[in-house]
Amino acid sequence: MESYKSYSYLDLGAELDPEGYVFATYRVTTDLPMEKAAEAVAAEQSTGTWTGLSTLKDDVFEKYAGRVTSIEGDRIVIAFPVDDFSGRYGGVPQILSVIAGNLFGLAAVKGIRLEDAVFPQKFLKEHFKGPKFGSEGMRKMLQRPEKPLVGTIVKPKIGLSPEDTAKYVYEAGVGGLTNGKDDETLVDQTFCPIEARTKAVAEALDRVDEEGGHMMHAINISSNADDIVGLAEDVQSWGAREIMVDVLTSGFGALQAVAEDPKIKVPIHVHRTMHAAITKDPLNGVAMNVFAELVRMCGGDALHIGTLGVGKMEGDIAGGRKSLEACRGDELPFRKVMPVCSGGMFPGIVPDVIAATGNEVQIQAGGGVAGHPGGVRAGAAAMCQAVDAAFSGVPLAEYAADHAELREALAKWGSR
Amino acid sequence: MESYKSYSYLDLGAELDPEGYVFATYRVTTDLPMEKAAEAVAAEQSTGTWTGLSTLKDDVFEKYAGRVTSIEGDRIVIAFPVDDFSGRYGGVPQILSVIAGNLFGLAAVKGIRLEDAVFPQKFLKEHFKGPKFGSEGMRKMLQRPEKPLVGTIVKPKIGLSPEDTAKYVYEAGVGGLTNGKDDETLVDQTFCPIEARTKAVAEALDRVDEEGGHMMHAINISSNADDIVGLAEDVQSWGAREIMVDVLTSGFGALQAVAEDPKIKVPIHVHRTMHAAITKDPLNGVAMNVFAELVRMCGGDALHIGTLGVGKMEGDIAGGRKSLEACRGDELPFRKVMPVCSGGMFPGIVPDVIAATGNEVQIQAGGGVAGHPGGVRAGAAAMCQAVDAAFSGVPLAEYAADHAELREALAKWGSR
Repeated sequence: MESYKSYSYLDLGAELDPEGYVFATYRVTTDLPMEKAAEAVAAEQSTGTWTGLSTLKDDVFEKYAGRVTSIEGDRIVIAFPVDDFSGRYGGVPQILSVIAGNLFGLAAVKGIRLEDAVFPQKFLKEHFKGPKFGSEGMRKMLQRPEKPLVGTIVKPKIGLSPEDTAKYVYEAGVGGLTNGKDDETLVDQTFCPIEARTKAVAEALDRVDEEGGHMMHAINISSNADDIVGLAEDVQSWGAREIMVDVLTSGFGALQAVAEDPKIKVPIHVHRTMHAAITKDPLNGVAMNVFAELVRMCGGDALHIGTLGVGKMEGDIAGGRKSLEACRGDELPFRKVMPVCSGGMFPGIVPDVIAATGNEVQIQAGGGVAGHPGGVRAGAAAMCQAVDAAFSGVPLAEYAADHAELREALAKWGSR
Repeated sequence: MESYKSYSYLDLGAELDPEGYVFATYRVTTDLPMEKAAEAVAAEQSTGTWTGLSTLKDDVFEKYAGRVTSIEGDRIVIAFPVDDFSGRYGGVPQILSVIAGNLFGLAAVKGIRLEDAVFPQKFLKEHFKGPKFGSEGMRKMLQRPEKPLVGTIVKPKIGLSPEDTAKYVYEAGVGGLTNGKDDETLVDQTFCPIEARTKAVAEALDRVDEEGGHMMHAINISSNADDIVGLAEDVQSWGAREIMVDVLTSGFGALQAVAEDPKIKVPIHVHRTMHAAITKDPLNGVAMNVFAELVRMCGGDALHIGTLGVGKMEGDIAGGRKSLEACRGDELPFRKVMPVCSGGMFPGIVPDVIAATGNEVQIQAGGGVAGHPGGVRAGAAAMCQAVDAAFSGVPLAEYAADHAELREALAKWGSR
């Protein structure tokens, strides 16, 4: 009794046409020799499985097998033929099934983390359009060509009525902020129906305009596949200047559908709730920069990337820089995504964050605005002052001398 | 300078109305006292953040705050008021943002795993419909009232033409299988366009019928939000008897949209690729049984749950049992989901798997069919023989004495 022909998925050092393959880099933890583990991954994700197959023929293997082209320490590169990826139907769901599918459950690996994915330019242009606006488009709309954008998340994240939400947005805008957003758990609750909220916020933004401000606010439309495109169109018709999609809960396929709807003429703010369930472990899961790349491909205009390890560990800084690069780098033939630094942000850490990101960023605070001793308007002003100080290269303490709101914020929360 | 009022999210021992709250159980790893960590999670996921808020008022806290109702060892229970969840729009994306959202990135926890979620019955019935067919409906269609269903995944997972795919399905059906399916990476590649594949497979299934078999095959429609419902209708019109959705890559919101489309009159087979990136770590992420529950709510008719630790570690068995319970238990007011045991399956382990699951299961093998020395038809027969043996309580070795295909399979792959 013979087993069927076994194929080798190793092709170390192969110089493959970058237009013919998707190159995925993984960090692998295994008790097996790395070559064996790498082959198991390449096989499972392309033409193989755990046993030889009567139905696998040479020509199929030659055309469609993933190839292990590099092993260096615990990093391996697998090149997947571009023909392994789907045509008219499939999108990112199908891409993820190849580059990040069953491999996490393979017995051959104790842990595996997708760290990078490089797609052929032709493939990218055929299947994706990228952001309609991107960071540049958002800056134009907001008439803010150089300074970091400064945003807030309406807090508490749930419980406010449409009127209280609109009041918050108005106060934030008058305080100087350029951006507001719903938080991830707010969509269409009875205490704050999405239509009433969108309309109330639109009025608030008009009032901010009248007082000389320029502000947008992202309405959270995260919802089911049969609702989300229509809901995006609806909230736009109700006056939304920006919409928000939570990409990991709604799906990349929902983001792309909304972004490529030609009727949608406002930017998309992309939240990433649940990401840490997948991105946190350095040895298993998917690195955030890969998700950032996919968001840019799918057409997100702004994306949360955290606070680049300010106040946290070194690893976060390296990961954050890769996400920044995915948002703003030149490798993708699409407009650049505005990176959003959000999560425990307050005025005292703004200079360090901007030192890490440069000015092409949206700095965003929820509690760091609404928790200000003087309320939302003062909190917004303090954040703007911190950004202005950092933009001008003036130390916060010095800038605070004649900026009371910043002074109060520093007194409450400190700085670094 | 005062900080704003701080609220306690602890309500240990509270006996809350089960119709008024969603109860989520988490396993928490933290360096903080457990009460502090639990409060941080309840706050972040409901009305709080890392600092006091000028905008949080007593009535909002009272109505919408999550409450920590239990702490036992490293397990905590948080009760989220049902009004925290969204109405007309939101679906599972919004539910996940509450029960499994930002908590994974909280500084207060080193790790946190969502292990269970219990929803009010009224809430479930208002927002979800469950499977249209479920295990009972599938059994009726397949005229197989008692025995486990026996399925295959067409292998190699990519590279076969529509004709070769159909030939595989035909051979499997003539070999006795009840179920076939596309694998997760196959959607609409140039070598196997979805329309041609669906039509070819439909013809193959008709031929299986003519020869006395009863078989369905799930066509993988995993794709973007603006495509997936239409594609489901299209493949049904091309003759698909079952459709497949990869729920974590396409999104729960895509699954529910397809399942609740009244035009869809075939069962939905739910694949879970990427799940191990979220479910593998016992200390961080989301347990598979929670995803199983959500799949049942959204209307999946069959769902992959692994092989219940057969050949693997103890922990997998416990997790697998919980997933089985989520598929088949009486807590949810919906039809029961057919659990699919898949992944490294072969005839030799079938009795152990069925001992763990009972007969209400779909046993499924890819390599364990296509890798059989006699080819697909013999591999299908061997799997069916193993299932028949287990169903009848006859040891495999004994049953193999007069069943050549099973004998060959045992000789190649062994048993346990």
